[in-house]
Formats: sequence, C-alpha cells, structure tokens
Amino acid sequence: MGKEPNQITEPIAKLFEGKNFAFIATLMKDGWPQITPTWVDLEDGRILVNTAEGRLKQKNISRDDRIAISVADQNNPYHMVTIRGRVVEQTKEGAAEHIDKLAKKYLGVDKYPIRSPDEKRIILKIKPERVHYQPTQN
Amino acid sequence: MGKEPNQITEPIAKLFEGKNFAFIATLMKDGWPQITPTWVDLEDGRILVNTAEGRLKQKNISRDDRIAISVADQNNPYHMVTIRGRVVEQTKEGAAEHIDKLAKKYLGVDKYPIRSPDEKRIILKIKPERVHYQPTQN
Repeated sequence: MGKEPNQITEPIAKLFEGKNFAFIATLMKDGWPQITPTWVDLEDGRILVNTAEGRLKQKNISRDDRIAISVADQNNPYHMVTIRGRVVEQTKEGAAEHIDKLAKKYLGVDKYPIRSPDEKRIILKIKPERVHYQPTQN
Repeated sequence: MGKEPNQITEPIAKLFEGKNFAFIATLMKDGWPQITPTWVDLEDGRILVNTAEGRLKQKNISRDDRIAISVADQNNPYHMVTIRGRVVEQTKEGAAEHIDKLAKKYLGVDKYPIRSPDEKRIILKIKPERVHYQPTQN
C-alpha cells in the first residue's frame, strides 16, 4: 500500500479524461455493497457522475453518501486509480447538458441517445477523500 | 431493472472466461465501500478471486463476507454483468497454482511474475446471490 493522498494529480486526471469507464460502489440499505459501471467526468477537483432520479445508485447515495470509485485505462487495465469519497452535492442544474457532454465523450454523438422523456438527470459530485493511484496493479 | 436471478448463464460465463478485469467491492471496517480491480475465474458456479493473506480485500471479506463484483467486456464495456454475493470459502489449497493459471490467462505467461516470497495466496470463492446481466448499459 502506498500513501493515500486526496488529490487528483495530473496522471489521475488523464484517466478520468480518457474514454475509460468508471466502476462506482455504493451502499444498499442493508449495507451490502453495490457496484455499477458509469461514465465519468472531472470538474474543479470533483468527480462527476451523471445518473437519473430514482436509479439504484442515486437512492443509495441519498441514504449514505460514502462511495468508492475505480477507473482503469482501457488500453492497460493495470494502470488504474481507486478512490474513496463522498457525494457532497446532487444537482439537476445543467444535468441534461452534462449527459450530452458525456455522450459526446464516450459515444461521439451530440445528444445522449437513450434518454427517456420522463427521466430527471442528476449530477452527483464526489469529493475524493482517499486516492490510491497505481500505474501497475495485480 | 430486469429480473435478478442468481444463475451464471452462458453469456455471463463468457464474460468471466474472457481476459476481462473484474471490479470487486468489499466493505471496510466502518462500512465504507472499497473497490479493487482483480483477475477473475469461474469454477462450478462460484466466482474465484485470487488474493494474498492480509490484503485489504481479504481482511474486509474476513470481517464481512458481502461483496459486489462487476465484469465488463473489454471490447464493449456496455456489455457487462454486476453480481452481489458472498465469499462462502477462503482456501490456500491450490492457490499458488491458481494464480499461475490466472497469469497465463491474463498475461500469457506460465508463472505469476510478481509474487513476493513470503506472501500466502488465497482463493476467495464467491457464491452469486443477485445477478444483473445487461448487454447494454449507460
């Protein structure tokens, strides 16, 4: 185990800026961990995840804001970062534009293509507390 | 949300048999979720993860056996499975051979190359309880 600072350094930011998926772990009501793959974004030192109201992870983090998230380089999964943090903010403001931005990043399209008319998008803003960065992992 | 059976069906088995990384979530002492990327294997309906004694996830599951694990197709991360389950067995028997088998699968080498002399390998055997398989995920 190396040191566990709480800063998103440049090589870590690159992992988030790439087209790499993140895996986010949240807590079920009974404390059981849950995990979901997700698109991810970085803004002002916060990790941004875009979900919709009522989704499992949104319900989970509304009850318990503690999460863990891991991003691995799609071209080299041994190059990865694992972060524990808290969802410090949930906002609907700009969330529709933000999912389009992520669709552009991950799918190369201008509009998020699978949005249902009645869903309310929400941005989850995560403050990193423990950052474990490892260029190589076994 | 689709149905959540507890069976590892054929397309799910293929995800585990491929060179895809798994992400496993365990619980810290204070209940905080932790996540680590890991090699993974399937045997007799159990998910096998090979770790070493004293590693964070091994300590975590020894205290609380509840885990979540997700595997995405490296060629199409929208094709993925997420499973909640329990570590029903920990064994050192065959664990050294098993890490070599995983090294063969993931690295194409006969011997696990980064083993330290004093580490004790352990196979964690996970019984799936909730299986959520999704060929496409956003």
